[in-house]
Amino acid sequence: MTEPTNSAARRRLTLDDLTVGQRFVSGTYALDADEIRGFAQVYDPQPFHLDDASAQATLFRGLAASGWHTAAITMRLNVESGLPLEGGIIGAGAEISWPRPTRPGDVLRVESEVIEITPSRSRPDRGMATVRSETKNQRDEVVQVLVAKLVLPRRVVAPGQP
Amino acid sequence: MTEPTNSAARRRLTLDDLTVGQRFVSGTYALDADEIRGFAQVYDPQPFHLDDASAQATLFRGLAASGWHTAAITMRLNVESGLPLEGGIIGAGAEISWPRPTRPGDVLRVESEVIEITPSRSRPDRGMATVRSETKNQRDEVVQVLVAKLVLPRRVVAPGQP
Repeated sequence: MTEPTNSAARRRLTLDDLTVGQRFVSGTYALDADEIRGFAQVYDPQPFHLDDASAQATLFRGLAASGWHTAAITMRLNVESGLPLEGGIIGAGAEISWPRPTRPGDVLRVESEVIEITPSRSRPDRGMATVRSETKNQRDEVVQVLVAKLVLPRRVVAPGQP
Repeated sequence: MTEPTNSAARRRLTLDDLTVGQRFVSGTYALDADEIRGFAQVYDPQPFHLDDASAQATLFRGLAASGWHTAAITMRLNVESGLPLEGGIIGAGAEISWPRPTRPGDVLRVESEVIEITPSRSRPDRGMATVRSETKNQRDEVVQVLVAKLVLPRRVVAPGQP
């Protein structure tokens, strides 16, 4: 198991280390037409994700990545560098939208903000953080908005301490 | 461009062909530990998606697929056989949750239901359908619930017809 170098060097955050309004920025991820088509061939084989000429005649007006490809790249960026969370990034659920397509040649990054922190009432060792992640391209246009509920451990407190 | 054989043979549905409560069932997709690890290496490199031994000590208690992998497989199933929609499956946004993990050896299928149909007020040629898709494993356990807003064309009506 190799951990991404970026985050291995950083202190990982528990629920108790987070504050509402806290922001994180990931590194970048460049994708090309071959990767867009490769993902689509396996998981979303539709003309607008496979072939630029076919895509011109559709709502997309040109080759566009599958929304699930953008979601997967967003996860990679948050795992590698965006969200250094103790125990990893474990999502219980999310809302997702794609305001505009991801295109060949795009360079994506993720800007995240903590919007809610909810300690578990039944489990004193964990809780839930709601994190809003905007995935942006090299022109600062938002290609995906993800509001995810993440399960996080609490900071371990020695017995008897408050 | 090759279309999946299943759906090529079926009539594709416009917004006007859908009714609330209409149901669809996809074919199946079997995945193994190698595919789970392969997706995770590229898009979600976390121990519980990469290595069974490491995963035992986590919330997952054993190797589990990335939620985004389950989402991608769900898309593939709906594109190939689940949802024969005119113009393809184009999502504007969605809510997604993962009630339990997808495991090596799972055989997934998708059961979808139309829950809302909203013709566009500004564009008479299109509208939005909300579709709830449950992804189930071979034990009929739900591994993912996806409620997606899909953009769909309306049936073309000749000028002068109601």
